[in-house]
Amino acid sequence: MKRQHIASMAVVSASRVFVGITRLVAATVAALACGLFIFSSPTYGQTMTSPNSESSVVAQVSSTRSVAAADRSMVFETLKVLKEGAVLFADIAAPPMNLLGPALVRDLVSLMQQAEAAAAVQVLVFTSAAPDYFIAHVDVTQIKEYREEAAKLTGEASIALLFRHLSASRLVTIAQIEGRVRGAGSEFVLACDMRFAARESAIFSQPEQAFGLIPGAGGVQHLARLMGRARALEVMLSAEDYDAEHAERYGWINRALPANALGSFVRSLAHRIAGFPAAGHIAVKDRVNAIVLAPTEDFRRDSALFGEGVRNPEAQSRLRAAMKRGFQTRDGEMALGRTLGDLADH
Amino acid sequence: MKRQHIASMAVVSASRVFVGITRLVAATVAALACGLFIFSSPTYGQTMTSPNSESSVVAQVSSTRSVAAADRSMVFETLKVLKEGAVLFADIAAPPMNLLGPALVRDLVSLMQQAEAAAAVQVLVFTSAAPDYFIAHVDVTQIKEYREEAAKLTGEASIALLFRHLSASRLVTIAQIEGRVRGAGSEFVLACDMRFAARESAIFSQPEQAFGLIPGAGGVQHLARLMGRARALEVMLSAEDYDAEHAERYGWINRALPANALGSFVRSLAHRIAGFPAAGHIAVKDRVNAIVLAPTEDFRRDSALFGEGVRNPEAQSRLRAAMKRGFQTRDGEMALGRTLGDLADH
Amino acid sequence: MKRQHIASMAVVSASRVFVGITRLVAATVAALACGLFIFSSPTYGQTMTSPNSESSVVAQVSSTRSVAAADRSMVFETLKVLKEGAVLFADIAAPPMNLLGPALVRDLVSLMQQAEAAAAVQVLVFTSAAPDYFIAHVDVTQIKEYREEAAKLTGEASIALLFRHLSASRLVTIAQIEGRVRGAGSEFVLACDMRFAARESAIFSQPEQAFGLIPGAGGVQHLARLMGRARALEVMLSAEDYDAEHAERYGWINRALPANALGSFVRSLAHRIAGFPAAGHIAVKDRVNAIVLAPTEDFRRDSALFGEGVRNPEAQSRLRAAMKRGFQTRDGEMALGRTLGDLADH
Repeated sequence: MKRQHIASMAVVSASRVFVGITRLVAATVAALACGLFIFSSPTYGQTMTSPNSESSVVAQVSSTRSVAAADRSMVFETLKVLKEGAVLFADIAAPPMNLLGPALVRDLVSLMQQAEAAAAVQVLVFTSAAPDYFIAHVDVTQIKEYREEAAKLTGEASIALLFRHLSASRLVTIAQIEGRVRGAGSEFVLACDMRFAARESAIFSQPEQAFGLIPGAGGVQHLARLMGRARALEVMLSAEDYDAEHAERYGWINRALPANALGSFVRSLAHRIAGFPAAGHIAVKDRVNAIVLAPTEDFRRDSALFGEGVRNPEAQSRLRAAMKRGFQTRDGEMALGRTLGDLADH
Repeated sequence: MKRQHIASMAVVSASRVFVGITRLVAATVAALACGLFIFSSPTYGQTMTSPNSESSVVAQVSSTRSVAAADRSMVFETLKVLKEGAVLFADIAAPPMNLLGPALVRDLVSLMQQAEAAAAVQVLVFTSAAPDYFIAHVDVTQIKEYREEAAKLTGEASIALLFRHLSASRLVTIAQIEGRVRGAGSEFVLACDMRFAARESAIFSQPEQAFGLIPGAGGVQHLARLMGRARALEVMLSAEDYDAEHAERYGWINRALPANALGSFVRSLAHRIAGFPAAGHIAVKDRVNAIVLAPTEDFRRDSALFGEGVRNPEAQSRLRAAMKRGFQTRDGEMALGRTLGDLADH
Repeated sequence: MKRQHIASMAVVSASRVFVGITRLVAATVAALACGLFIFSSPTYGQTMTSPNSESSVVAQVSSTRSVAAADRSMVFETLKVLKEGAVLFADIAAPPMNLLGPALVRDLVSLMQQAEAAAAVQVLVFTSAAPDYFIAHVDVTQIKEYREEAAKLTGEASIALLFRHLSASRLVTIAQIEGRVRGAGSEFVLACDMRFAARESAIFSQPEQAFGLIPGAGGVQHLARLMGRARALEVMLSAEDYDAEHAERYGWINRALPANALGSFVRSLAHRIAGFPAAGHIAVKDRVNAIVLAPTEDFRRDSALFGEGVRNPEAQSRLRAAMKRGFQTRDGEMALGRTLGDLADH
């Protein structure tokens, strides 16, 4: 009840300050009502094959796949994409728990390529269609496979480099987080330019240490810089679950908001930013990234350490033990932090 | 009411901790009663022409101006300066909104030169005499002019370098913020060593993105390091208004305090610091600056990007549109965040 | 009362999130009941003379001392050490105020050497046996002596390098802070990997500026990176006392917890981490340290500046004045922040 109270305070305070952007909501809701899936025009696919010069993407897609993508560019297996003006909303829909496997990585690669190539798109918002999960974590049974999908964008078999590509993109990216976001899921939202989370439902974790691993997709790089040494070590060494309030306090997210205010807040912010000149987005991201985005080499190294570590017998044995207790199942991960602690007893 | 409650809690808590310094207030109030404008003795002007060896200032003032300044060294057009022991209080008085134009920059340069040259001065506190504004932002119609004033201290036509000079100064600087502080105003307080804001009235913003620009006076450098990547990007990409509570949570300021406690808190803190050995101030600032103050070259680059960007047709067109809606007027900027969001609709 | 309320909220919230680790408490309490001082087996001393290859320690202990340590390895003058599984609890017991002098430094060196050499030990928790004090600060009358003790581990007469050794250790270290922790005491907990403090009793300060000195044992390096420029300057320039709530808000500590929840929280966390693979601890610490732990050279420089500064006549005179007012006495430092402010009046 107390938490409720403070939550509602935050809304009052947020709405006092962000009065400007909430005014866009009404218009947006109307736009949503007639919202179209993007990429429905055949001409769009052509833009993708002549990449926008503002984008640093070197397309790695094979010509076969590129043609296929052009033909059914709006067809994603695990993403529902909606375009509103210069804002794309990508709803992650890989039930039951939005596991980051080859299909989701393939779709993220494709979405990033198309969105970066579409000059009209300025802002990309990620949401989740799976109740209780935003992105659970990687599919540990298909590491080789999802890494190969990532290589199609960056040329290297690593989601760390894929996520870093997103951070360096000309697009402004916002994660709207409801439910659990652990491991590479957390690292994906850390790669986004901003992240706002539902106070009631969002849960954050870097669980790799329970298996003797380090976060391999940029988590070390982002968390150490965002939280400082002691909090980053706590988060990673404990492999614990953190709620949105603690995540906000530690700087893991920009802000925790009440679930019923989150969507309109993010949508308004996205449209506000999209209305400002695109050249400004690029300039400010470039200057900020030059200061606080870790060098590619450090992402590459973390990725390699994760890849080597996961093949160790101890990691394999702990992963098998976790699987017996429901790891990588929707129900089994509702309280993963506790499960991992129990593992440690063995 | 709830906010009120928490605010008063903060006071209780602050006073519990800072019991020591509040004891100085009574003495200070007495001193204030007979407060004199500084630099009233003719000998002071002479100190200015033989700069204190502790100061790294290379005086760029022409001899004519220097003589004039010596003659009426206490006469500032836009600053009311009061000396209390080793603390100078500089009240920014450029009504109606403390716009940062040539006059205010000229006076800041002159104040910095004189204060750094006065061995007896240790701490410099900035306050505002304008209701509702601390420093609005730069006067966009006089960029060339105020930059030239800044060059008189640093040799380069850039307020970024002027502000960085302040951060590297032997003087300890404290901003006591009431009212709006946007753009270069925000960057000025970011250049100060500490900043405390009135919970009820202070409003912060880096509005440059609304015109396709980046903050050019050090905002990028400070905010990225203080807030981390995601919050710095949010603040700069959104060009939104943030109240003192949010600014505190994001690390934009040291602390938000109730308006009725702010002045005595800052004054006591200033006198406490001024009572400690001057060599210690220099040593701790040097060591901290070596770690977290960005290199001059990065300030110079941001300043150049701002200067180039503001001449772009799109920036000019957006600035004109903003002016039609009251930009650079006292009343028109009371809710600038909202105004800029509406601009985006066009 | 309000603070109380918020405190209890934090517990509720913490327990919601950390449900997993609190389940370990019952077992732990049982273990405690039959807790043994460690190093009771004669074979342990031998491990110490053949250091674990994972450790970067170059033992500097003379052979005489090393034999002596092996003989009575559980006998520490100022530390009570308890082993529970892979966790060591070191209770600092140098009454009346846990002053950091030669005896405590000698014991810390010995503990670090033995713990690092004991492959079964993974986590090291520091607590205090002195009411009202965790570690007061260094014994300013024995600087040469305690520095020489530190040199026995690192080869250099500096506690800054000793503390940095702790940060780089393969061991995971946690400070459980009750009471005052100032100067080198604060720097010791900053060198630990994590620090949790009792909301009601913990008090933090870097008081060096009152004597014209900088923190010489890593405080500048840690605080500037954890808090950012303005808050680090405030803390160090003011030499003020900060309670646990402010310390948490500024990032000085991971979290403030109610005193009655602190011990079980830390113990559970320590056992949780100790249950995860040791190779993982090393990997994550290495990667995080590479990003946010300052270079040895910077610790060495701060240490040298402190050592030079403390010999200055002004520092000596201020130290003598402080001593007259109870500095380095248990009662005289209960409100040291205020005492130092009064010193400034002279």
